[in-house]
Amino acid sequence: MAAIEPLRFLDADRGGPAVALLDQTRLPAEEVELVCVDTSALVGAIRRLAVRGAPLLGIAGGYGVALAAATGEDVAAAAEELAHARPTAANLAGGVARVLAAYRAAGGSPGAALAEARALHAEEDAASAAMAAHGLELVGQRARILTHCNTGALAVGGAGSAFGLVLAAHRVGRLEHLWIDETRPLLQGSRLTAWEAAAHGIPHTVLPDAAAAALMAAGGVDLVVVGADRIAADGSVANKIGTYGLAVSAAHHRVPFVVVAPRTTVDHGTPDGRSIVIEQRDPAEVTSLGGRPVAPEGTAAFNPAFDVTPPELITAVVTEVGIVRPVTTGALAKLIRR
Amino acid sequence: MAAIEPLRFLDADRGGPAVALLDQTRLPAEEVELVCVDTSALVGAIRRLAVRGAPLLGIAGGYGVALAAATGEDVAAAAEELAHARPTAANLAGGVARVLAAYRAAGGSPGAALAEARALHAEEDAASAAMAAHGLELVGQRARILTHCNTGALAVGGAGSAFGLVLAAHRVGRLEHLWIDETRPLLQGSRLTAWEAAAHGIPHTVLPDAAAAALMAAGGVDLVVVGADRIAADGSVANKIGTYGLAVSAAHHRVPFVVVAPRTTVDHGTPDGRSIVIEQRDPAEVTSLGGRPVAPEGTAAFNPAFDVTPPELITAVVTEVGIVRPVTTGALAKLIRR
Repeated sequence: MAAIEPLRFLDADRGGPAVALLDQTRLPAEEVELVCVDTSALVGAIRRLAVRGAPLLGIAGGYGVALAAATGEDVAAAAEELAHARPTAANLAGGVARVLAAYRAAGGSPGAALAEARALHAEEDAASAAMAAHGLELVGQRARILTHCNTGALAVGGAGSAFGLVLAAHRVGRLEHLWIDETRPLLQGSRLTAWEAAAHGIPHTVLPDAAAAALMAAGGVDLVVVGADRIAADGSVANKIGTYGLAVSAAHHRVPFVVVAPRTTVDHGTPDGRSIVIEQRDPAEVTSLGGRPVAPEGTAAFNPAFDVTPPELITAVVTEVGIVRPVTTGALAKLIRR
Repeated sequence: MAAIEPLRFLDADRGGPAVALLDQTRLPAEEVELVCVDTSALVGAIRRLAVRGAPLLGIAGGYGVALAAATGEDVAAAAEELAHARPTAANLAGGVARVLAAYRAAGGSPGAALAEARALHAEEDAASAAMAAHGLELVGQRARILTHCNTGALAVGGAGSAFGLVLAAHRVGRLEHLWIDETRPLLQGSRLTAWEAAAHGIPHTVLPDAAAAALMAAGGVDLVVVGADRIAADGSVANKIGTYGLAVSAAHHRVPFVVVAPRTTVDHGTPDGRSIVIEQRDPAEVTSLGGRPVAPEGTAAFNPAFDVTPPELITAVVTEVGIVRPVTTGALAKLIRR
């Protein structure tokens, strides 16, 4: 496969207007493209996680506004519905607002809405490419890279953050092997990242999250690369649960630990790791699997969505405008001001 | 529940002769006792993991020989079949050989075989009790203990190794909470340890293995206790995959890391951690769950059965004859000679 297209806008020449998306709930078993011809179909797809990943949701929201404009729906109402399809997705609301503003500024022009949505998509593509280009400096020859969760095209738009760097390393012949943490409880590593790796012909192996330390002890990992949900002003990184344990283990084994994230991930309103509120998710994600219980009925589960890795365990943060190394408040602020 | 009885011999007074065992493959959904009235039924139960855990398999093998003797089967043939029901289970073959020897020494006496099997069972009970009694010294007031895998009555005979210590701490009022790693890939923590904890009224919570480091960082863990599959002469501990990562994390957070294991686990024929061969298990344990694929077809998986924790990361090893602390070759050798 040349490139994974998790999301695209189909204009009239291609049977549209419509927003076409790869149904992520059917992966890895099936590759099914959903064609959404109106806002309500797209909102439904967003709600049931057929499309997911913060940056990708932003693009989906933008295309949704363009779709409403192209089909003659009430654009303001469509934007409202799209923006609230998932309550905590800031990027989704942001993409919607940006494209709605462009549409209005052009006097209600469907063409302007689509152009703005495509610009947003192109910016995400460019950000992935720039992160990968900067990050390659940190990847040696014949690198065996370990990653966690899903940070590729299925989540990010473009080639991805951490996965975008992995893919770039593969393309320049520097990647010997990709180790993929399965990433319990929702298994984004084995379900999604393994699918993306296979699609790109990257040699890869999945492993239980708890096997990563033994793999490092055996000398099997040269570099750990992960994404970020949010980076505090001091460089503390909130990311998928399990990231922090990987960082502790990487430090113990002197394996470089690199975070790849667009600079919009840095939140100056969050001074440090302690200020990050950890969302607890449904215990059933841990105590059942595919609807089948794996623990006695009523078992309590500790199921934080993410954890926080302090800057002293992070070798470098790679953004689309450059690398921060070592990770300090001052260096981050300076980079973001560029 | 007063006590979990994963395995018992039923004599004629109780409808036997038979070996009755709790079918562990039905847990946690159902508590079903399997009554095996002949060797072939018991061998079948062992093969399909209805009974598991090295010490428990030793007792099962012993009772199997007693059963064959009591029912008038060919005892030598039965012993041979039992000893090979699972090829790598040293305890199983050991229990069979011990009871067979007692049977022969008594001139082919079924009573002597049963007495020897019961003695073996009683020794395991006593070993669990003694490990717990020694280990309590390491448990403070209101302890929040984290454990991994299943080391209770379902695995060990008696109350368990690491879990036996947890249970003793609970009974003397020193346990505030038990954290249970789910223990991927086979989920012995959420399936079996959570079931045992509930049966004993121990307050407990399961967690994804990768969440343990974040829990330690939040100050939620006072002590980690785990079992051991094998302890090398230098104190390196082979145990369920994920144990080593926990030890690395415990050291990073200055949380004591304690191994509880009978002294027969110490193998002087294995000089150090490097000498321990790591068994790779079926990738399907990682790439599918309950027969349902969770990764693309053909995905490779790194699935070591266990990992090796070096002695410098282990605060203490608790055995039935005392505590080794710090864990050194000399201290281990001295303890075992007692």
